[in-house]
Amino acid sequence: MVTFNEQLCGLVTLVKVEGVERYGQLRNDYKDLTVIQAIATGGVVPKEVQNKLVEEGWTRTGYTLCFDCMKGRSDLIAKPPVGAFLEDVARFVGGEQAQHTFGCRAAQFAVMKTVSEFVKEEGQKEYGPIVLADPLCHYTTALAAEAAGLRLLEPSDSGHPEHKVETEGYRLKIEEIMKETGKLPGLIMATHVDPYHGNLCPAEKVGEIAEEYNVPYMVNAAYTAGVLPVDMRELKADFLTVSAHKSMASLGPLGFLATRGGWTDKAFRSSRIVAEGTGRKWRNKILNIFGCSVGGVPLISAMYAFPYVAGRVEKWEEELEKTRWFIQEMTKIEGVRLLGEQPHRHHLLHFETPIFFEISQRHKRKGFFLADEMIERGFVGLQRGMTKNIKLSLYGLSWDEARKARDAFYEIASKYVKEYKLDYNVP
Amino acid sequence: MVTFNEQLCGLVTLVKVEGVERYGQLRNDYKDLTVIQAIATGGVVPKEVQNKLVEEGWTRTGYTLCFDCMKGRSDLIAKPPVGAFLEDVARFVGGEQAQHTFGCRAAQFAVMKTVSEFVKEEGQKEYGPIVLADPLCHYTTALAAEAAGLRLLEPSDSGHPEHKVETEGYRLKIEEIMKETGKLPGLIMATHVDPYHGNLCPAEKVGEIAEEYNVPYMVNAAYTAGVLPVDMRELKADFLTVSAHKSMASLGPLGFLATRGGWTDKAFRSSRIVAEGTGRKWRNKILNIFGCSVGGVPLISAMYAFPYVAGRVEKWEEELEKTRWFIQEMTKIEGVRLLGEQPHRHHLLHFETPIFFEISQRHKRKGFFLADEMIERGFVGLQRGMTKNIKLSLYGLSWDEARKARDAFYEIASKYVKEYKLDYNVP
Repeated sequence: MVTFNEQLCGLVTLVKVEGVERYGQLRNDYKDLTVIQAIATGGVVPKEVQNKLVEEGWTRTGYTLCFDCMKGRSDLIAKPPVGAFLEDVARFVGGEQAQHTFGCRAAQFAVMKTVSEFVKEEGQKEYGPIVLADPLCHYTTALAAEAAGLRLLEPSDSGHPEHKVETEGYRLKIEEIMKETGKLPGLIMATHVDPYHGNLCPAEKVGEIAEEYNVPYMVNAAYTAGVLPVDMRELKADFLTVSAHKSMASLGPLGFLATRGGWTDKAFRSSRIVAEGTGRKWRNKILNIFGCSVGGVPLISAMYAFPYVAGRVEKWEEELEKTRWFIQEMTKIEGVRLLGEQPHRHHLLHFETPIFFEISQRHKRKGFFLADEMIERGFVGLQRGMTKNIKLSLYGLSWDEARKARDAFYEIASKYVKEYKLDYNVP
Repeated sequence: MVTFNEQLCGLVTLVKVEGVERYGQLRNDYKDLTVIQAIATGGVVPKEVQNKLVEEGWTRTGYTLCFDCMKGRSDLIAKPPVGAFLEDVARFVGGEQAQHTFGCRAAQFAVMKTVSEFVKEEGQKEYGPIVLADPLCHYTTALAAEAAGLRLLEPSDSGHPEHKVETEGYRLKIEEIMKETGKLPGLIMATHVDPYHGNLCPAEKVGEIAEEYNVPYMVNAAYTAGVLPVDMRELKADFLTVSAHKSMASLGPLGFLATRGGWTDKAFRSSRIVAEGTGRKWRNKILNIFGCSVGGVPLISAMYAFPYVAGRVEKWEEELEKTRWFIQEMTKIEGVRLLGEQPHRHHLLHFETPIFFEISQRHKRKGFFLADEMIERGFVGLQRGMTKNIKLSLYGLSWDEARKARDAFYEIASKYVKEYKLDYNVP
């Protein structure tokens, strides 16, 4: 039989890297399963979009959208309409300008670099190299700050089990920072919905504080922009960072940075370096996004998915209803408890599940049994090995799929309660 | 008729962004054309790979390869075998470790950040915040230096029309830098093949100089690794930066950074930031690549294409033969001259084409006529508007396609020589 690789080019026998053929045989065991991974459901790409990518030949090269690039920058491309799309993305989130980035992490990095430069501006004595972030911020926020040479400080949250971000904590911390350093932080940031518990942060209130102290303000909307209505004017945000592969039904890596006001020019400033020799300069390239973020097939997928995404945010309440129903259903299993705020206002769910932990102690597959059993029942995305706590999302699932997911958890729980004679009530 | 978007989810009527439906209708006018864009031919993805991406469901989400992620870092994923793949990529280019990055630009940025940190190490007085780069380096090298706070200095090249990088220029410049600053540069870099003329740099020789002065050394192999055999041990490189969407038949954005020796740990060091509040740390995340570079469908495409890529580099001489034949054929058009070194050792070609410039002066489409006419004849990738100089590549084209490309240029030239009664010989 002729293998896939031999079909490819008949070159395999020449290859010096041993065993390289196996990469041609990659199989995706999960291709027919329903995705319930907490951070992936908002990124599920509609089947029609996937098909278009290949049918229309956008998957032919990484430079698929660059053939009509006139100015060496993807945001200035008119065919396909990248420039118009970025304007529409900006409008979609209430911003004035947007650039696409290598994921939300790169968008956050661009903001941190902007701030890092801002606090070093000549004659600027008011702001220090400090980011004041909410205590539930994603690790990429911290790493972006580290890469830009900024410290990361946090107010406290309301503690277990709700872990709510408290607005007044920001104020206290700002006062503390001023006392300690004599300066304001260079940036205040809030994670619109956090990756731990799916709490919706009081981002407008934080924005008011940022405005009051006149500190630039970034909202990380990685888990919100694209699934629920977000307007950075309402949030009073100067910067909004977005993840297309988390929440805009797009392939990755892709994100967006949207900006407002005077921060736009700073964030998207041109390169200033001069090559000392040839004297070359690149004034057409945007420094903080590496000149041009290429885009490629992830960006095309985001464009195809945009009508769908722009439409679905208006149906957010229906998603919330399904999510809240599921929380009710899950907590009927004895001992199961939702972490994060109640009533819950996001699709990302984090449960304490002592029953599954107890089962894992007796199961020969240990903690792995749960993800395994869910996969057997058609659902992929539980963190393998985790049973004490589980995170998942039913965003975008039909009601029928949602009921099946609930039934799967009930079934698994019942099965082992019976098998191990455990003392738990399961509906 | 039900449109594509209506099929998608019937949500279009709810959308607040005006005209958003049009993104669902995107068409790729170039999907059936042969790609001759100078920097894109090495990135053309085999049709079989494109099909596999959708057939196997890898295009379903941006987190397509993350379902079995155990440690929060893509390079540690065993299924699909990302970890093994990165080891094989490292082996493929003679490196010890490799990480995937958001394109070659992000790989270069990781190196520049490493150097920027290195020159600031406590007690380190020997090296300064300067990169000594070849005068044909890509703009992304300069921007990576700028983003990392490094100066960029260049030796001179051999001048027009060959623009060869001269090894001894590096030595002179190092001496100059030492005289001026009292320190060695923090990094020496060479662009293995440059983006302007497709010259193959004497990277081994530069490596010897770097070794002699004991300066870390980076080779940017964006245009070579994946199309011709590259061994960073022979080049004496500490860092090798690779572009998967330029030269590894992959979707983008995707690149690799391969490292050797003591620089591996520095380049791929863990995050050290501590969130001052919660006390959170992220010691499992690699700072210089933003924690984890996600990967997504570009990385899967690179894995599928790898057997093909690892095989094709062994057939590089056949590609060179075709390229050199094409140079001969093109220069039979009167006045056409190849820029860059002779004999040419890379598929990236840059011609002076005064005949096409003269035609553009009379043509109603001005400089746009040439790309237009090539598109009519089945070839996409000439920079629109350019006629005085053109850049292209026939890498990966069959001999038949190469002959057709030549014929297309001959036809266009002949047609207008006749039409405008120009004084040029055309075969």
